[in-house]
Amino acid sequence: MSSIIISAETNQHLIAVGNQDPSAATEHLPTDLPGNDIHSSRSTSRSGINFPSAIANLLHLHHSSPPPLPAVNELTPTFTPKDDISSLRSFIHGPGDWSSLLDPLHPSLRREILKYGEFSQATYDAFDNNPGSEYRGSSLYGRRRILQLLGLSRYGYAVSRYIYATSNINLPRWLVQPLLRPKSSWCDVSNWMGFVAVSGDAESRRIGCRDIAVAWRGTVSAAEWVEDLQAQLVPLIPCAPDHEGARVERGFLSLYTSRSESSRFTRSSASEQVMRELRRLVEFYKNRGEDVSVTITGHSLGGALALLNAAEAASILPADVAVTVISFGAPRVGNELFGEMLKAKKVKVLRVATKQDLVPKVPGVVFNEDRMGEGWEWVYTHVGDELALDTEASMYLKRGVVDVAGFHGLETYLHLVDGHEKAGGVFRARARRDVALVNKFAGLLREELAIPERWYQPANKGMVRNEFGRWVVPRRPKEDIPSPCAPSPAAAAASASSAPRI
Amino acid sequence: MSSIIISAETNQHLIAVGNQDPSAATEHLPTDLPGNDIHSSRSTSRSGINFPSAIANLLHLHHSSPPPLPAVNELTPTFTPKDDISSLRSFIHGPGDWSSLLDPLHPSLRREILKYGEFSQATYDAFDNNPGSEYRGSSLYGRRRILQLLGLSRYGYAVSRYIYATSNINLPRWLVQPLLRPKSSWCDVSNWMGFVAVSGDAESRRIGCRDIAVAWRGTVSAAEWVEDLQAQLVPLIPCAPDHEGARVERGFLSLYTSRSESSRFTRSSASEQVMRELRRLVEFYKNRGEDVSVTITGHSLGGALALLNAAEAASILPADVAVTVISFGAPRVGNELFGEMLKAKKVKVLRVATKQDLVPKVPGVVFNEDRMGEGWEWVYTHVGDELALDTEASMYLKRGVVDVAGFHGLETYLHLVDGHEKAGGVFRARARRDVALVNKFAGLLREELAIPERWYQPANKGMVRNEFGRWVVPRRPKEDIPSPCAPSPAAAAASASSAPRI
Repeated sequence: MSSIIISAETNQHLIAVGNQDPSAATEHLPTDLPGNDIHSSRSTSRSGINFPSAIANLLHLHHSSPPPLPAVNELTPTFTPKDDISSLRSFIHGPGDWSSLLDPLHPSLRREILKYGEFSQATYDAFDNNPGSEYRGSSLYGRRRILQLLGLSRYGYAVSRYIYATSNINLPRWLVQPLLRPKSSWCDVSNWMGFVAVSGDAESRRIGCRDIAVAWRGTVSAAEWVEDLQAQLVPLIPCAPDHEGARVERGFLSLYTSRSESSRFTRSSASEQVMRELRRLVEFYKNRGEDVSVTITGHSLGGALALLNAAEAASILPADVAVTVISFGAPRVGNELFGEMLKAKKVKVLRVATKQDLVPKVPGVVFNEDRMGEGWEWVYTHVGDELALDTEASMYLKRGVVDVAGFHGLETYLHLVDGHEKAGGVFRARARRDVALVNKFAGLLREELAIPERWYQPANKGMVRNEFGRWVVPRRPKEDIPSPCAPSPAAAAASASSAPRI
Repeated sequence: MSSIIISAETNQHLIAVGNQDPSAATEHLPTDLPGNDIHSSRSTSRSGINFPSAIANLLHLHHSSPPPLPAVNELTPTFTPKDDISSLRSFIHGPGDWSSLLDPLHPSLRREILKYGEFSQATYDAFDNNPGSEYRGSSLYGRRRILQLLGLSRYGYAVSRYIYATSNINLPRWLVQPLLRPKSSWCDVSNWMGFVAVSGDAESRRIGCRDIAVAWRGTVSAAEWVEDLQAQLVPLIPCAPDHEGARVERGFLSLYTSRSESSRFTRSSASEQVMRELRRLVEFYKNRGEDVSVTITGHSLGGALALLNAAEAASILPADVAVTVISFGAPRVGNELFGEMLKAKKVKVLRVATKQDLVPKVPGVVFNEDRMGEGWEWVYTHVGDELALDTEASMYLKRGVVDVAGFHGLETYLHLVDGHEKAGGVFRARARRDVALVNKFAGLLREELAIPERWYQPANKGMVRNEFGRWVVPRRPKEDIPSPCAPSPAAAAASASSAPRI
């Protein structure tokens, strides 16, 4: 696998042109926003290569002639009116069994999957990874603006808190690599890892409960990422006394639970931050007599973190709060006992996995010399229900190329979800999602569509001309400047005197 | 040399954010304009590598600690008021000897060099090389708008004609490669190669003559470009009967003189187009009793074409029209007799060449088995006066890296010209040109300046969202749509009946 390059998607997640969110207030938004460093491919060559047929079979690729290309319909709205799905609540956001909604895929469930997928995509789009940025590692936008600026106001959620994780030196190399960056004046050790959001009243009525969504950012950085997943499985955080033997991948767990004293953002771990917020919100809404659900989502590594978060949430929150995971392209996270623990705690998991995507296929078995032969406890397994997608179902995508990065991309997933009707079925004729989005960070669309590859980037990497005609890196608007990273002297003194928390 | 990558600058020439040209009329210009495909580097790694000291000496690189970095002055205007230089006319735009103005470099000559350098840069910035573009290979902007949209109105010129060259299959591979593109609906065989512009009345008064500027586009595409310059020298176009034995590089000559019947743009060659326009303009202004000069400029390959153009112009135009060449990073073009021919015709040539740039060092000697030992007529030589620049003179640039592409870049040249005072001197303290421009297509600026590398790119590769929220490739404004490429039926019938022109 070391010969397959997986693209540095983290480095390419950039902000959309901001003011076309139809549901946004008529506030003037800049038509182009400071963005990330793009790191996009400079070559016009296709990133795919032709593999021998053995591999093609492994990835379910077949050299068939492409079906006729429907016109990309530029003149239709990109989303359909929302339906009241409160009657389906228990199946989607509740403990009810949703397997009957999966094949064929119920349209309402499809829309919910796309909603959480867009939240996952938002964690990429708003991540500031511009090497020149003063606030590299933070979200580009303040939490009050992020959904609107990304055109996601229409979902009717409000972000209540941001989550940060530390780029702790104890993390495995493959996690640290993408997180490492030159010293920024903002924060050396903390990275923005996602957000917690709550459904507003209208959306809560529509879906039948107050939904607390947690979106975790992934990272699609390098082949090492996937190779190093052969790391040692470690015991889960000790909140599963009945599930002795449940184990999860060490790197994911480190990212979820590490702290760093030198940053106020990660003096508590991502786990502590998100659980504190979930407990707070759950208590608040339950006190108002509302039904509350928690839906955790993420792509790639973010999908792995979502599962860890779900395990913890289901252990700590009241039993009547349904905990659901919707992940995209997530790797296996833990062993069979871990999966059984989640099932026992009634965590519903929907893993969206494209057949041609390698990441959900790894890791396989842990090769650990000390432990060899000790049994299944060392084998990674998947959890929950799978929604299997197939790139060959879409006539919009190129044929006969193996583009591992493209197949793993979240935008590709969202395209395939939009077109998915049933297993082995053809792409939905009435699919409305903008096909051009597939090529934001990839080169997967057929050439005839004339959509540029890897097109999602800010003008001039965010540089603008000032009044003297000089190109400068602009300052962020006040509402998008993150808090200072260094802990206040008073807080530092206080924490120095208390016992270290393990 | 095949181990050195020279960047595909042609693929990166994009349009500036348009509405900050202080001298433009207060017409509303879009703040972001449809642009080229960017093909910019996706890696954050520096493009330079550390070479052994022998090579370092060859390129005049020395590992000295960088001098202190002056503040990049964001709060000063980027250009200085223009001075009346009509008294210097004969030295700059006329036949007078300008060697006394070169070292130290006279400020007025410096400004003129920068002016023509910006015209050369314009041929890159306005070239549509977007694979998805309907008009790939043309100028992004109509000739009436191009200078204004690129912020060059302040120079007081008007573009009178565009020049096109054909991507004839008889061209050497290294020329064809950058010109080849997938079938576009506009024109398969013609490429926009530059423009002819005339100084307006104010500028003509300032410099002391009516100046006709010709700017040729270069191409900085691949190592083959440089390697293949070992091609056979061929006789110059037969307008030099007194200079039998003058020879020029075959590829350059092909590009300058090739025609293609299948395109109305290149039914006449670039040579024929530019000479027709020069004759027309010269006649027009001489009939008004004005002094006329012709100043031809270009970078890299464009500098080579400028020299061929000058040879032809000096042969054809009236003797009292001074012909001057100002080139940047140009390779050698012809043999010694070619150089003597230009001198005899009183063509003044200023070659701006950076010591660390490899392109002016090639080709050397032609290795041609048939001709070996026949003498100096097969050796390429440079022509005219050289203005030698040194990257080490600028404290803004990185030390200790060998970035061949960056050293060859035109923006680097313009930066160094701006800071140049005298041979071996330090960077001018009062240099005003925006330093950030160096990194438009390169990664040469010191990290401390926090200017992103290769930042010059349009938002979302020119994609925009339509009223339905869909991302689409926009249509060009009417005034920027080039004429249809196919010859009209009447013209095709007429040319079919006349004798082919050789």
